[in-house]
Amino acid sequence: MKTPAFTTRFQISFGDCDPAGIVFYPNFYRWFDATCHAWFRAAAGSHARLCEALGSVGVGLVDSGASFRSPATEGDVLEMALAVEAWNRKTLRLGYRGTVGERLVVEGFELRAVFVREDGRMRAGETGPLRTLLEQSGATTTTAS
Amino acid sequence: MKTPAFTTRFQISFGDCDPAGIVFYPNFYRWFDATCHAWFRAAAGSHARLCEALGSVGVGLVDSGASFRSPATEGDVLEMALAVEAWNRKTLRLGYRGTVGERLVVEGFELRAVFVREDGRMRAGETGPLRTLLEQSGATTTTAS
Amino acid sequence: MKTPAFTTRFQISFGDCDPAGIVFYPNFYRWFDATCHAWFRAAAGSHARLCEALGSVGVGLVDSGASFRSPATEGDVLEMALAVEAWNRKTLRLGYRGTVGERLVVEGFELRAVFVREDGRMRAGETGPLRTLLEQSGATTTTAS
Amino acid sequence: MKTPAFTTRFQISFGDCDPAGIVFYPNFYRWFDATCHAWFRAAAGSHARLCEALGSVGVGLVDSGASFRSPATEGDVLEMALAVEAWNRKTLRLGYRGTVGERLVVEGFELRAVFVREDGRMRAGETGPLRTLLEQSGATTTTAS
Repeated sequence: MKTPAFTTRFQISFGDCDPAGIVFYPNFYRWFDATCHAWFRAAAGSHARLCEALGSVGVGLVDSGASFRSPATEGDVLEMALAVEAWNRKTLRLGYRGTVGERLVVEGFELRAVFVREDGRMRAGETGPLRTLLEQSGATTTTAS
Repeated sequence: MKTPAFTTRFQISFGDCDPAGIVFYPNFYRWFDATCHAWFRAAAGSHARLCEALGSVGVGLVDSGASFRSPATEGDVLEMALAVEAWNRKTLRLGYRGTVGERLVVEGFELRAVFVREDGRMRAGETGPLRTLLEQSGATTTTAS
Repeated sequence: MKTPAFTTRFQISFGDCDPAGIVFYPNFYRWFDATCHAWFRAAAGSHARLCEALGSVGVGLVDSGASFRSPATEGDVLEMALAVEAWNRKTLRLGYRGTVGERLVVEGFELRAVFVREDGRMRAGETGPLRTLLEQSGATTTTAS
Repeated sequence: MKTPAFTTRFQISFGDCDPAGIVFYPNFYRWFDATCHAWFRAAAGSHARLCEALGSVGVGLVDSGASFRSPATEGDVLEMALAVEAWNRKTLRLGYRGTVGERLVVEGFELRAVFVREDGRMRAGETGPLRTLLEQSGATTTTAS
């Protein structure tokens, strides 16, 4: 993973776990998304304000994925690091790395686009203005929530 | 419970259950809400169209509650019945009864209001127009999704 | 509400909110449950260890309810206070009060029982041993996670 | 996608959607998992019975991913098809394809392993017995829930 731009923490609770006693895996994607939004919030106040500044309806998902390296369970504190892995013309790739203490639990990514509405349809706009906004706010260098 | 106005079904999956192997209880509220929205959909097409017809921002929650009568688990099919328990001037009380086969699993309620925005604030509007709309669509007599 | 025995915080994220832009209400119950489990953890290490100490399969739900006093949205930090409202012979009533800054957002309760397995069935056991365990750990006086 | 081995349906509700009015993406993974478990159920009665037959603690996740092809929203009925994409010695790759009517909404996969406990640790066992069990039940040819 590249140098994290942002880190945050999640307390894993009983209700996040399944009958096998470990985290029900879609929750890891929920935590990826929450980390991304915490990062947006640190940079722009909120996703809503970010979208307003960009004339966008949402910095939404194109693709995502995760590898589950070791189980996490009730009581674990998951430390999640976000890194900007790539700025493409129409997409932004974010990498995630979730650890419990020294132990690697999950690695994943989100490919996001700056969606704009045009003639009643959604399409991916240029990522340049988002990059400028995030870089000017300092959000692409390490900060913690 | 009064005569149900609407019934629907939910297939309980592994991921709906907690480390004790039974449904994680907030999911029952998720299913109450989904039943209410399926009922709105049957009556008005969607919550969005219902709100448009009523000039409302949402038929939202004021209060809710549930009693857990017996556990439900992976593989169970939860049959959920909704009944209109009371029409008040500014609120509507919905009752829910969830069964697996003959067995009672959950009983609950939602107290909802027709929220309108006024001078930048949310307040509960009159329920009369919602009642008229639902009664004219036949949604207050029994239907199944 | 009685004097809180425990308080914790939840960062409200985009994904916790619904198309009306406010918290999807079943999440408040998820946060009640997470607060209760954080409290158990503070007292006994984990729900699993608590159950082991009590010979219980789970300190589970009998009843719950919530009143939604004002909306909460993305970016809000929800401070949740838990108070022990009543020790009954076979049930324990917990009260919850969720605030964002000075503003009251949600008030609710959980009625829980110490479930034990007996002859292949679940039944509510005496709450005395749980009360002793929590009081000895100091968990019934105010602590914060 | 290969020929589906199994298909099921999910009614998309208001509470499955986010402030942008479209499905909050982790829910698609929840539906992948629910489809897989419905398939296990059709083959073996339940995940629990499947695990018992295999001496496994769970047919759990190693890796997963999804591409979001078009948005889905409240009221849509998501038809989800599951196909077995590959049987490896220690992993099984499942492909998913979710459509609303004719429209492709999501494509994804899960790489799963038959986890066994050995000397207090979890490791991936051979997939052969799972394959035999699923093939004998007819679960690897098309069925619908």
